[in-house]
Amino acid sequence: MRMVDIIAKKRDGHELTTAEIDFFIKGYTAGTIPDYQASALAMAIYFKDMTDRERADLTMAMVNSGETIDLSAIKGIKVDKHSTGGVGDTTTLVLAPLVAALDIPVAKMSGRGLGHTGGTTDKLDSIAGFQTEITKEDFIRLVNDDKVAVIGQTGNLTPADKKLYALRDVTGTVNSIPLIASSIMSKKIAAGSDAIVLDVKTGAGAFMKTIDEAKQLANAMVKIGNNVGRRTMAIISDMSQPLGFAIGNALEVKEAIDTLKGKGPADLHELVLTLGSQMVVLANGADTLEEARARLEEVMYNGKAIEKFKVMLKNQGGDASVVDQPEKLPEAKFKIELPALQAGYISEIVADEIGIAAMQLGAGRATKEDSIDVSVGLMLHKKVGDRVEQGESLLTIHSNREDIDAIKQKLYDNIKISDQAEKLQLIYSVITE
Amino acid sequence: MRMVDIIAKKRDGHELTTAEIDFFIKGYTAGTIPDYQASALAMAIYFKDMTDRERADLTMAMVNSGETIDLSAIKGIKVDKHSTGGVGDTTTLVLAPLVAALDIPVAKMSGRGLGHTGGTTDKLDSIAGFQTEITKEDFIRLVNDDKVAVIGQTGNLTPADKKLYALRDVTGTVNSIPLIASSIMSKKIAAGSDAIVLDVKTGAGAFMKTIDEAKQLANAMVKIGNNVGRRTMAIISDMSQPLGFAIGNALEVKEAIDTLKGKGPADLHELVLTLGSQMVVLANGADTLEEARARLEEVMYNGKAIEKFKVMLKNQGGDASVVDQPEKLPEAKFKIELPALQAGYISEIVADEIGIAAMQLGAGRATKEDSIDVSVGLMLHKKVGDRVEQGESLLTIHSNREDIDAIKQKLYDNIKISDQAEKLQLIYSVITE
Repeated sequence: MRMVDIIAKKRDGHELTTAEIDFFIKGYTAGTIPDYQASALAMAIYFKDMTDRERADLTMAMVNSGETIDLSAIKGIKVDKHSTGGVGDTTTLVLAPLVAALDIPVAKMSGRGLGHTGGTTDKLDSIAGFQTEITKEDFIRLVNDDKVAVIGQTGNLTPADKKLYALRDVTGTVNSIPLIASSIMSKKIAAGSDAIVLDVKTGAGAFMKTIDEAKQLANAMVKIGNNVGRRTMAIISDMSQPLGFAIGNALEVKEAIDTLKGKGPADLHELVLTLGSQMVVLANGADTLEEARARLEEVMYNGKAIEKFKVMLKNQGGDASVVDQPEKLPEAKFKIELPALQAGYISEIVADEIGIAAMQLGAGRATKEDSIDVSVGLMLHKKVGDRVEQGESLLTIHSNREDIDAIKQKLYDNIKISDQAEKLQLIYSVITE
Repeated sequence: MRMVDIIAKKRDGHELTTAEIDFFIKGYTAGTIPDYQASALAMAIYFKDMTDRERADLTMAMVNSGETIDLSAIKGIKVDKHSTGGVGDTTTLVLAPLVAALDIPVAKMSGRGLGHTGGTTDKLDSIAGFQTEITKEDFIRLVNDDKVAVIGQTGNLTPADKKLYALRDVTGTVNSIPLIASSIMSKKIAAGSDAIVLDVKTGAGAFMKTIDEAKQLANAMVKIGNNVGRRTMAIISDMSQPLGFAIGNALEVKEAIDTLKGKGPADLHELVLTLGSQMVVLANGADTLEEARARLEEVMYNGKAIEKFKVMLKNQGGDASVVDQPEKLPEAKFKIELPALQAGYISEIVADEIGIAAMQLGAGRATKEDSIDVSVGLMLHKKVGDRVEQGESLLTIHSNREDIDAIKQKLYDNIKISDQAEKLQLIYSVITE
């Protein structure tokens, strides 16, 4: 088998065999197939796409390129949730204890963030003492005992994907549905979950700018998951404006606490229930999405969800008192309001630009080496469709420095006020198979 | 400027600027742009093509990536001829002295061959004493004095093309009109000629398998040449069967001598006159192709052409007596006939396979390191459309070994005999602008 023939076959629009895809991924991981052949194949895939069978094969070849996490010691169906990434996306922090409160095991492996705001691990750094660097044995014990635990990324998972992703990033081959879908799904499958719920974001703050692109990606991932024996569902949700009000690590923890108590922002509340319902159904915790939703609402309002969050914090060394005294969370030195320059209706809050503004305050990393300031960020007071009067505060900037004129300008530039504007739809599509 | 943006721009079907193409070729030659980005761009070009302007820019960027040959010290318009390569293609050896016999300067830089049969330099190795390793000063002096000389490839011409060609060969991006056309034209332009005649082959023995593909390539090259200020013409000629009767180095030299005397095989004779006419017109040696042809026929039949060949041989140390005593050329030990197994008409002589058979006898190189046996090869006795009786010899195998059963079988497999067959068209198209 020769790599040049595999490239030419895909270039000419033919379907690659399982053996050919394995040959490519094994050779590329081992370094016997060079980057320049991998990038040519990636570009050929960009133009000629892959069949469902090829996508599943590529995913499993990448899973098998490295270690996989064995969660079989955890009783029950382990459901993982993945978001394609957005601004102010606090759902994981809410979903883990919420679903666990129904006695469904949530074994969450979480990473640090790059760009916009922090990852789940960064957000949890806001809570004094909380440790995500726990042993695999402790992780499994905690999930078996209390149904929820969060562990930092561990092991050499999907090295082929890491190598290929880095290559795609510099060769104009990132934006390819089969390559994105297999990349995401390989990581989720290697992380050991039995079932997967996907939150595919669309809009300015998301990688998929249009609903149609997001649907294609969601369908591709759901097909891959189901084709390789992991039950998978997905939703398409809006990321043209940030999710919830909080953008920034400690601010998002506080918002997560509110949401677990049933007092979160309407959009975050709704998204958590939608995704959570899918997780519950996939874990056989309910027969229908409606039943699952009712069970989740119950633990939200009867206090079981927030209690589960406290248990999770305590189990991993965290200060659980922040739940009842959120003022104990790290706070920024300055709280600066951003008054509206005119009256009207909010017509646009450009998610990615708002995320970059939060990153510039210190809430996110521009490069891997940057450190995060968990206390800083933005608290929106308005969302798209809301009425605002002149001089009324659009948002509060939580900052540890006062010289933020450029950031203010960026925020003004990306929050548009018009004579009229409607609220945005949050969930565009629910994909259950 | 970032290479990844250039790749994405071409991937999305946009036209690259002159500056972007220069940035790519300069960076790639210098090694600051890695192979994996160059191969991704090549694949994007494969799918999205290039405009005439981009093709001309790419050609000149490759020309400027290395040294160029300055032929300005040679008086008159220097016309070069290039063939895209075929089996038994002896035209250069005939054309150089033939055109020079009209006092038109022919400064021929020639290389060694890989695959099938040898290059012009290999063929000239059949002539005792002939040297192509001459100084540039001697080369220019000889052309000024006697209008013709042949020099081996010299200098670091078009290093970008060499690097890119090697990369394309292993990344499935060889077969792209803009990339092939700019590769060929950059080499011709760097070699210093003022005008260029192209012989684009089509059929089994050629890179371009169909007439349509060959026309596309020919048109692309003629446009590039004229766009960068080198008058360029082209023809499309048949390479489904070998050209002439001789395949092999000394055998082709003998056939070239016959052709210079006006006694060559009909197809080689016709091709030489067609290409030669274009060369003469481009060098302002005639106003029309018809007039040029008449002048060439005159020197063929009045002996001036073969005399010029003798002068060329003598000037470069070669034994010119072979012209009148071709039996002095190296001869193979065994001459083995290949009798027809049935009577009928020759319907196919698969050029590339016949070429490989000659290579297996030792007439060509499978790898760069192989040495060539100039004495061996094949002499066809029949061409497509000819009548053959059972037992009549199809061709003579000139070999230095007797154990050639596998080669005989290959020859039988690739010479088809049918109840009826027509002669093949030799020249499909003449492109003068």
